[in-house]
Amino acid sequence: MLSRRAAGGRDARGPRSDCPIACSLDLIGDRWTLLIVRDLFLGKHRFSEFLAAGEGIKTNILAERLKRLEAAGLLKRSRYRQHPPRYEYHLTDSGRRLSSVVRAIYAWGQASLRGVRQGPLPAGRATR
Amino acid sequence: MLSRRAAGGRDARGPRSDCPIACSLDLIGDRWTLLIVRDLFLGKHRFSEFLAAGEGIKTNILAERLKRLEAAGLLKRSRYRQHPPRYEYHLTDSGRRLSSVVRAIYAWGQASLRGVRQGPLPAGRATR
Repeated sequence: MLSRRAAGGRDARGPRSDCPIACSLDLIGDRWTLLIVRDLFLGKHRFSEFLAAGEGIKTNILAERLKRLEAAGLLKRSRYRQHPPRYEYHLTDSGRRLSSVVRAIYAWGQASLRGVRQGPLPAGRATR
Repeated sequence: MLSRRAAGGRDARGPRSDCPIACSLDLIGDRWTLLIVRDLFLGKHRFSEFLAAGEGIKTNILAERLKRLEAAGLLKRSRYRQHPPRYEYHLTDSGRRLSSVVRAIYAWGQASLRGVRQGPLPAGRATR
């Protein structure tokens, strides 16, 4: 269980209501966060891999989102090289439970938006 | 099928990629849009009803989101009073298909965030 206040992150005043949707959107309701979660499901774990995704996320936005997701308990950071220090990111159990959200959005986009990529969501290690 | 460019709305440069998730987030990836969609599922249809939701959405944000959702084809506006003109908002077929997204986020919030409201998502007319 994640603290709503920790999860809310962006708003120092705390959660807007006790609605599960509002509290979730305080954490994942933006244009970038679920793209990082998508990439984690696809088996990407390193900063450079997230940067290389097709949407062209900016370095500062990526760094901020990773920090916030870690603070909220949705991912864990581990060092894979000492000098210079380099980190890998992995979803926690709470983060992996976002699979249903990512899949629902993927399916909605395919059913509702013209010109998007068709076919199933590629299966990475974390989605199996 | 909705045009990605119309749906993208906020970004005049057009869609960021052909990923269904990225294109969906261009439209619904913010802290407020899915709360309005939630309220539509709960049977609310009028500006004053959305304003009265517990999260305290501001008038200008609500007006902008309703306009954008209408332009994207997710909801339709109809006049229910002539003088002064007053409007009701109803989900289109594409909008109603967001039910799976709203439900997935609701379930994730309940399973993952401490202190949120428990119990099933109240059933409005549009969710049945």
